[in-house]
Amino acid sequence: MNLTHIEHLGIAVKSIEAALPYYEKVLGLKCYNIEEVADQKVKTAFLKIGQTKIELLEPTSEESTIAKFIANRGEGIHHIAFATDNVVDALADAAGNGIRLIDAAPRKGAEGLNIAFLHPKSTGGVLTELCEDPNKI
Amino acid sequence: MNLTHIEHLGIAVKSIEAALPYYEKVLGLKCYNIEEVADQKVKTAFLKIGQTKIELLEPTSEESTIAKFIANRGEGIHHIAFATDNVVDALADAAGNGIRLIDAAPRKGAEGLNIAFLHPKSTGGVLTELCEDPNKI
Repeated sequence: MNLTHIEHLGIAVKSIEAALPYYEKVLGLKCYNIEEVADQKVKTAFLKIGQTKIELLEPTSEESTIAKFIANRGEGIHHIAFATDNVVDALADAAGNGIRLIDAAPRKGAEGLNIAFLHPKSTGGVLTELCEDPNKI
Repeated sequence: MNLTHIEHLGIAVKSIEAALPYYEKVLGLKCYNIEEVADQKVKTAFLKIGQTKIELLEPTSEESTIAKFIANRGEGIHHIAFATDNVVDALADAAGNGIRLIDAAPRKGAEGLNIAFLHPKSTGGVLTELCEDPNKI
């Protein structure tokens, strides 16, 4: 699997509005975009630090997996996403190594990326996303 | 606060030996160092991806905070560490913004970095470390 960097970290928050002052005023990062990802039932705020984005994930429904995560574990780091130049090949690599896939094929994520998740039961408890930027291929 | 990149992610594992094949064989990263940090009662394995290190943290004692984290929440992402060129100033910034500090002054962490932690109660549930590399100043 050819991973180049950590594309983003997903952080579950109850409220983007309440969370942003810590990231902007204390840490000094800048939120450059907020968008809703309807099929994941979240609103997402993006900040950048070095090569990596921080994605604050606010549930827009109690049915959202983010709402369930917060109910079970509280706010905090939800997942890690690695950048790859070929998410189909990366998924095949993972499956060939016995890793359980949440997504057998890539789907569209925030910011137009092609994404797929690996199951945390196979990755030492770390919900792991693979991301390919179709504009960079 | 002047943060440049994500220096590392700390991931709590029961066993580095059991966790490494996922990171090395599946993700294709390379472990370049394993060291023990006696005062934190952990053994740490380091891998690098882009600007960021992944630190696998294995408890060496049941008294380790990592052992307690795993007992309470299972294996998974434990903390995020940001790189700064001045950890003393960064701590003063954080305290001035009402952030609760775990370390009021920097101490030595793995790989000789000067480090300090912010309390997750002040950071939206994200245990946050600030790191300064004294060899880069």
